[in-house]
Amino acid sequence: MSSSQLVRVAVAGASGYAGGEALRLLAAHPFVEIGALTAHASAGSSLGEVQPHLRGLAHRILEPTTPETLAGHEVVLLALPHGASGQVAAQLPDDVLVIDLGADHRLESASDWEQFYGSTHAGTWPYGMPELIHAEAPGADLATAARQRDKLPGTRRIAVPGCNVTAVTLGLQPGVAAGVVEATDVVAVLANGYSGAGKALKPHLLASEALGSAQPYAVGGTHRHIPEIRQNLRAAGAPDVTLSFTPTLVPMSRGILATATAPLAPGADPEQVRAAWEAAYADEPFVHLLPEGQWPSTAMTLGANMALVQVAVDAAARRVVTVTAIDNLVKGTAGAAVQSMNLALGLRETAGLITEGVAP
Amino acid sequence: MSSSQLVRVAVAGASGYAGGEALRLLAAHPFVEIGALTAHASAGSSLGEVQPHLRGLAHRILEPTTPETLAGHEVVLLALPHGASGQVAAQLPDDVLVIDLGADHRLESASDWEQFYGSTHAGTWPYGMPELIHAEAPGADLATAARQRDKLPGTRRIAVPGCNVTAVTLGLQPGVAAGVVEATDVVAVLANGYSGAGKALKPHLLASEALGSAQPYAVGGTHRHIPEIRQNLRAAGAPDVTLSFTPTLVPMSRGILATATAPLAPGADPEQVRAAWEAAYADEPFVHLLPEGQWPSTAMTLGANMALVQVAVDAAARRVVTVTAIDNLVKGTAGAAVQSMNLALGLRETAGLITEGVAP
Amino acid sequence: MSSSQLVRVAVAGASGYAGGEALRLLAAHPFVEIGALTAHASAGSSLGEVQPHLRGLAHRILEPTTPETLAGHEVVLLALPHGASGQVAAQLPDDVLVIDLGADHRLESASDWEQFYGSTHAGTWPYGMPELIHAEAPGADLATAARQRDKLPGTRRIAVPGCNVTAVTLGLQPGVAAGVVEATDVVAVLANGYSGAGKALKPHLLASEALGSAQPYAVGGTHRHIPEIRQNLRAAGAPDVTLSFTPTLVPMSRGILATATAPLAPGADPEQVRAAWEAAYADEPFVHLLPEGQWPSTAMTLGANMALVQVAVDAAARRVVTVTAIDNLVKGTAGAAVQSMNLALGLRETAGLITEGVAP
Amino acid sequence: MSSSQLVRVAVAGASGYAGGEALRLLAAHPFVEIGALTAHASAGSSLGEVQPHLRGLAHRILEPTTPETLAGHEVVLLALPHGASGQVAAQLPDDVLVIDLGADHRLESASDWEQFYGSTHAGTWPYGMPELIHAEAPGADLATAARQRDKLPGTRRIAVPGCNVTAVTLGLQPGVAAGVVEATDVVAVLANGYSGAGKALKPHLLASEALGSAQPYAVGGTHRHIPEIRQNLRAAGAPDVTLSFTPTLVPMSRGILATATAPLAPGADPEQVRAAWEAAYADEPFVHLLPEGQWPSTAMTLGANMALVQVAVDAAARRVVTVTAIDNLVKGTAGAAVQSMNLALGLRETAGLITEGVAP
Repeated sequence: MSSSQLVRVAVAGASGYAGGEALRLLAAHPFVEIGALTAHASAGSSLGEVQPHLRGLAHRILEPTTPETLAGHEVVLLALPHGASGQVAAQLPDDVLVIDLGADHRLESASDWEQFYGSTHAGTWPYGMPELIHAEAPGADLATAARQRDKLPGTRRIAVPGCNVTAVTLGLQPGVAAGVVEATDVVAVLANGYSGAGKALKPHLLASEALGSAQPYAVGGTHRHIPEIRQNLRAAGAPDVTLSFTPTLVPMSRGILATATAPLAPGADPEQVRAAWEAAYADEPFVHLLPEGQWPSTAMTLGANMALVQVAVDAAARRVVTVTAIDNLVKGTAGAAVQSMNLALGLRETAGLITEGVAP
Repeated sequence: MSSSQLVRVAVAGASGYAGGEALRLLAAHPFVEIGALTAHASAGSSLGEVQPHLRGLAHRILEPTTPETLAGHEVVLLALPHGASGQVAAQLPDDVLVIDLGADHRLESASDWEQFYGSTHAGTWPYGMPELIHAEAPGADLATAARQRDKLPGTRRIAVPGCNVTAVTLGLQPGVAAGVVEATDVVAVLANGYSGAGKALKPHLLASEALGSAQPYAVGGTHRHIPEIRQNLRAAGAPDVTLSFTPTLVPMSRGILATATAPLAPGADPEQVRAAWEAAYADEPFVHLLPEGQWPSTAMTLGANMALVQVAVDAAARRVVTVTAIDNLVKGTAGAAVQSMNLALGLRETAGLITEGVAP
Repeated sequence: MSSSQLVRVAVAGASGYAGGEALRLLAAHPFVEIGALTAHASAGSSLGEVQPHLRGLAHRILEPTTPETLAGHEVVLLALPHGASGQVAAQLPDDVLVIDLGADHRLESASDWEQFYGSTHAGTWPYGMPELIHAEAPGADLATAARQRDKLPGTRRIAVPGCNVTAVTLGLQPGVAAGVVEATDVVAVLANGYSGAGKALKPHLLASEALGSAQPYAVGGTHRHIPEIRQNLRAAGAPDVTLSFTPTLVPMSRGILATATAPLAPGADPEQVRAAWEAAYADEPFVHLLPEGQWPSTAMTLGANMALVQVAVDAAARRVVTVTAIDNLVKGTAGAAVQSMNLALGLRETAGLITEGVAP
Repeated sequence: MSSSQLVRVAVAGASGYAGGEALRLLAAHPFVEIGALTAHASAGSSLGEVQPHLRGLAHRILEPTTPETLAGHEVVLLALPHGASGQVAAQLPDDVLVIDLGADHRLESASDWEQFYGSTHAGTWPYGMPELIHAEAPGADLATAARQRDKLPGTRRIAVPGCNVTAVTLGLQPGVAAGVVEATDVVAVLANGYSGAGKALKPHLLASEALGSAQPYAVGGTHRHIPEIRQNLRAAGAPDVTLSFTPTLVPMSRGILATATAPLAPGADPEQVRAAWEAAYADEPFVHLLPEGQWPSTAMTLGANMALVQVAVDAAARRVVTVTAIDNLVKGTAGAAVQSMNLALGLRETAGLITEGVAP
């Protein structure tokens, strides 16, 4: 595709946080023309009524989400509630690039889907995490290992990863692939901003409850992102993955700070651990290993398509500790969608995406 | 200037919040090449050490702020402590565009400067608020009234307005210029994010003190932005301006929400008040009057070069109430600098600037 | 009443924020025994399910709000939605002390009620602001002026003031009563914590929307607390009151920081202004004028039955500026209820109430 | 001691957060008279200047911290920087109850102290965590196991635990003592409020940096609380303790939410895990196991001497996950000091302490 042509992109679910963030990014994309914006309950409203921060699109009217309104676009982004995208996607032509920001098409295992989501699996689409390492077994040469980005050019279906999944996967996969950590006892605890919960009107999501407080949710092995993280670390070479995963809501709107730790592999040289992360991310535009001693904060990544990673070895605890910061709505959702779209369409991977966070 | 050439811009004071924000915007500017970055105490460090959110510039080394390091640039941004820019600017050639993000060159009245800043006035530079209305007297035709942007093309010195000043001025000036409000008893109270206070290490700026709390500062007519607001409203046609101004720090990093109210002018028709704001901002790219009934929040403007304004008439109180939201570091500082730079250089006014806020 | 006997207190509306806060205070009250706890939708639940922070009462079961469940108590606190307390109160015996934390019985003017609340006025009860000054006209001797506390002993009906009303009234009334400010052009702008909005599930009250943002509401003379503030300042001696009132939601759960300003009275000596506030609050246990130069923050009052006030004269603006901090749920609601209850029952006014805020 | 006599308590370090919080609690203690308040840099100031939230003590003058100013008290609380209390304590008589809120006397192992604090060990004092379980080996009968409270009556020296230590220890010790978890691979990740860092003026503690962001610190086995947690879990019966510990700063002033996980012991019945926590805390006044399915938030404990704990078994991960919420300044510091003081003096353990958090 020549970049002098504009790609016409529709966004279904434009009234939600994921859809709004996709529009914020697409509005700044040099090769995109924003087409239909659709919604469910808000259909008929102007976008400015529900997303007043998107000034350039404020006058646009939200249409209902139907095959007709979504027709005539080269790309359709589905930012729909979990479980809703399968049906909509089935009505779209095969040659349209359909990018699902929801969970429906992420998992390869139908039984995982059924166990964690409690419904029938909609199928598996190519996975929209370009940096995912593919290794047959631990001990891969990270400079030459295959990445998921190799699988995206030309695809017409993309499943965007879960936000927590992105943070934990990017934090740990270099060590897994290089064989310096073991994935048999991964523990991840996350500090999460409230936008990850969407616009649902639930008491524990009220500002009065959230301000000045921290609270966990989905503790004890029930969170739906668990099978997806396990799937990714297996892709990175782990024969088996055991994961304890606990997200905690903290008083910020955006951001994930994921502390993920795994046992140091027997025989691994602590002095060589950092080298795996350096090799894995030396050339990545949107995943940076920070200089030694500097730790990520979520503010560093606010609004940016960027994951910042740091790693340390705790010799006494015989564990490698990683901390990864992302903006859950950008690198965790809409930025990953645009990055993958760029790859699928043959555009420059970085087109329309920025790496500078809005800090402080 | 042809926009195919890149303008080479130096930033003095690149380690502070204003300098960092200028770099964030300049990094995304299509016609800018970022030149020297200078600092005082941080000279010798990499930018990544002090501004880790600016990934694309992380490897750049901060140089000391000297005429030599600032030489060879078409534009020099001064993001220095108040009082420091006069001396630096005096050492720069006349044909270099020098943009002062500090206060030194904003005020026209030397006695105002001396009263509020307690030092010798450095002089007055063209004022970097393109939307400022110039009217001889109340009752101007806002569709044709002169704006400050008319004075900026070709200038080589620009004084960027104060952040609070921008919010209050943009909120009230349409009514002042149109003569529907009187500036003789303006009251403005602001909710301010902490980044406006800079990186100074003071006890009341600690997170532990700020979180969960609101506190006023500079109450009772002492804030340095008072004479600048008065100057602007006089430019907009007010024969005399009396202003009660109270900023309050609230627990957010960025943002100003300015509630500014002025008496309804005798004889003004309440039904016609809104028309003044509509006329004033109908064509402004970076100042929007929201649809009736929708009120601005600072989140709507986060990271964007955008002021959102709403106005209401309180008939019982015989006052017009305006609320204006900006990001203090963008439209309040660095965005205004870039917008004014564009005008001074003959570039498109909107180049490199976005209007979409990072919300939620 | 001898304080060796325990007063049995029921709380209707124990599932909401006001009811929960009343219980928090009553649980620490040396002369109170907590009786029935009632609720509407939550009836049948344990208190621990809806107010898990009240550990000592966690096992108590919420009953429905009926005359039967509320029978057998010497005091009944009504923490009900606006409009609901009139009917419940009518079913309670005359010799029971009924304290309405809602708005229904605050206003003296039925037409004010109808204009701002849009329903039939339920009647006027003795007003639960013990510190309210009663003066016939400006120029009162504040050392000897009557206070509302004189009217409370023995009463069996109390209307607790609105939270914003408390902050603005306490801020301005000394100057009004002393005649050093004029109430003809009062402007008040408040920074408000989100708990003031209750547990209502509305989109703009979500944490994701609130965090990092400030937003106004009820702008332009529509807020229901306006007639109540006007009523209070008239009680303090103002012949007429004109009020511009704008609340703004800022990212904290509790607290009100009210900036309230009024014109300096013609002929008033700026040097003598502070003396009015000193005289008004010299002996008040729960309203303190801070030492000159120290400004209140809401954190100073968190959890405490305390209003902190500071005042300054802005000679150039010819205005007196006051800033008042309270915890909206304590001095703004439940603390005022307990304080007034103490007075009505002949207990020590300060019983069970603390003045130390939970800071930082 | 008869509780009709008042105990005279001095607070050294009254200008800091720990000292201020101790004063807030002591001011409400029925059996305490507050004596000398001392400070270092703030000596000579009124308490109101540095702790304006403590209204009842605002007029008290801070004295220098010397043996003379601290003389004549039955209790001296030392809220001093780490390393400073040893010297002060050495100058106090043996029959004075000295309670060290700092770290100096917590550790039993001098080599642990030297490794983590880098100075000479000041010695070990009785440990002020009344709920600490003492067990010879895993498998203890928690209904009859010894607690640290048995060792406190009559003591005249108390070392108050670290705040993070309290949260992690209370979360995990029931499982360790009962033998249902193994302490050989404990992983703890904490969300911490900023007040835990004290009033130190450091850039990363500024509100502008903290708001809207989460950041880790002391990652990789370097945090000073690690040896203290290990010491406690050994006391609870663990033959050996390995701990990965990562604190993260999140945007709240107070509170710790500690997610602590340990492997399920081989042979332990997942159905029986909860029983250990129930048995351990059934009679504790200040540590509550929440009902199944309800998870703690820090807001539930704000200002209260309360630890709220929940536990779940993640069968797939073969780990037990605990989440514990405390207010770092109360149960984490000053509340533990008062609770231990009560025990040492023979007062009711709960005197002057409340369990109701200030929520929302």
